[in-house]
Amino acid sequence: MDKREMLYEGSSKRLFATDRDHLVLLEFKDDVLDQNGSRKVRIPGRGEINAAIAGYIFQYLENYHVPTHLVEQNSHAQLLVKKLNMIPIQVYVYNSASAKLAQRFRLEEGQRLEFPIIEYYLKSPRLGNPQINESHALALGYAKMEEIRAMGRMASKANAILKSLFERRGLALMEFSLEFGCLNDRIYIADEISADTCRLWDKKKNRRMDKERYLQDTGTAERCYRELFDRLTKAM
Amino acid sequence: MDKREMLYEGSSKRLFATDRDHLVLLEFKDDVLDQNGSRKVRIPGRGEINAAIAGYIFQYLENYHVPTHLVEQNSHAQLLVKKLNMIPIQVYVYNSASAKLAQRFRLEEGQRLEFPIIEYYLKSPRLGNPQINESHALALGYAKMEEIRAMGRMASKANAILKSLFERRGLALMEFSLEFGCLNDRIYIADEISADTCRLWDKKKNRRMDKERYLQDTGTAERCYRELFDRLTKAM
Repeated sequence: MDKREMLYEGSSKRLFATDRDHLVLLEFKDDVLDQNGSRKVRIPGRGEINAAIAGYIFQYLENYHVPTHLVEQNSHAQLLVKKLNMIPIQVYVYNSASAKLAQRFRLEEGQRLEFPIIEYYLKSPRLGNPQINESHALALGYAKMEEIRAMGRMASKANAILKSLFERRGLALMEFSLEFGCLNDRIYIADEISADTCRLWDKKKNRRMDKERYLQDTGTAERCYRELFDRLTKAM
Repeated sequence: MDKREMLYEGSSKRLFATDRDHLVLLEFKDDVLDQNGSRKVRIPGRGEINAAIAGYIFQYLENYHVPTHLVEQNSHAQLLVKKLNMIPIQVYVYNSASAKLAQRFRLEEGQRLEFPIIEYYLKSPRLGNPQINESHALALGYAKMEEIRAMGRMASKANAILKSLFERRGLALMEFSLEFGCLNDRIYIADEISADTCRLWDKKKNRRMDKERYLQDTGTAERCYRELFDRLTKAM
């Protein structure tokens, strides 16, 4: 697989063309934005470990017949993935009340929800990434009806599978976000599901185990990422 | 039917008990709030005409098998309706971009939408009436799954029926809002659908024909309400 020109560079990932038309290389950088998206932080080793975590999670979902863009896990902080037409919607799944949800509905932060809440946000910095629902997506042409339905179903299914995976590792999946892309009328989970897109609660140590904690002390951040990878991949 | 004690008083309506357990009288006042909900305006005759408009619309929907709370249209600005357990969600249906939608998504105000947009707002002044989706309603206990589904279906069906009714009267239904209630596991359209909850465009005169225009000049407001009632009820 030859790595060719760079197609896109984001805050924490780069996308490269390959010598195969429908495949691209997703490279995880050591850089990451903080939770507010305002400050860039460099964590040596973060790219490689996070790529490994994302690869593990995508493979795990594939085993449960949830289609993801993963083709092959590569060394060097890279995943070989399908080249998709991305749907400009970010999906958030909450199993417990995040700070913002708690504020909006006067809940206790961290309160477990009886049913998951799924929120859709339009990825449009120009419009301030507004929250939308299925009817906005359809009426304003951001996605087709069958895509929207598939996204909801796949987000729910991924949540059930990952909640139970993390549970067995002593971790509560409080919240995670997802993006989707399509190719030949099929929908795939794309982008990443990783230490940076999940909010996790370490039930043994009774503390957060995700980007928010790591970034409080960047000195130990690499160790934190590695600890999550080890917890996740090594059955206990 | 005996009118008994007042059960509730809102800005533009009162609800009275009757001598029958499951029936209440919905009385339309001459008072109405302006579009921002900040200023109370008294329009003599408004109550009676708006009750007649709401009664006409509910009866029209019933004829198309959309269940509403209407039992009987009464004189004296009153509708006899079923006593329901209200669902604390206000549903907005947009066929064209309202000012707020246009601002949020940088659309042209009044732009026709290819598919209707349906928005759900929690009726909770304490929380600032936040926009929600089906999953918030379910997770936070505001409605059951089958209620939420029925609300979406009934809002779509009512929209199709009313759009076509107004169309035949030379009026475009740009937007309207709906509330729902339930009784014995059945969902009904409740509250009112009237001159005050619909945004209409007069296609003949090329101007608004709804509360927003009426309230610009309260002197002619009664005539405007009556004109709408006449347009609506007299086949042309």
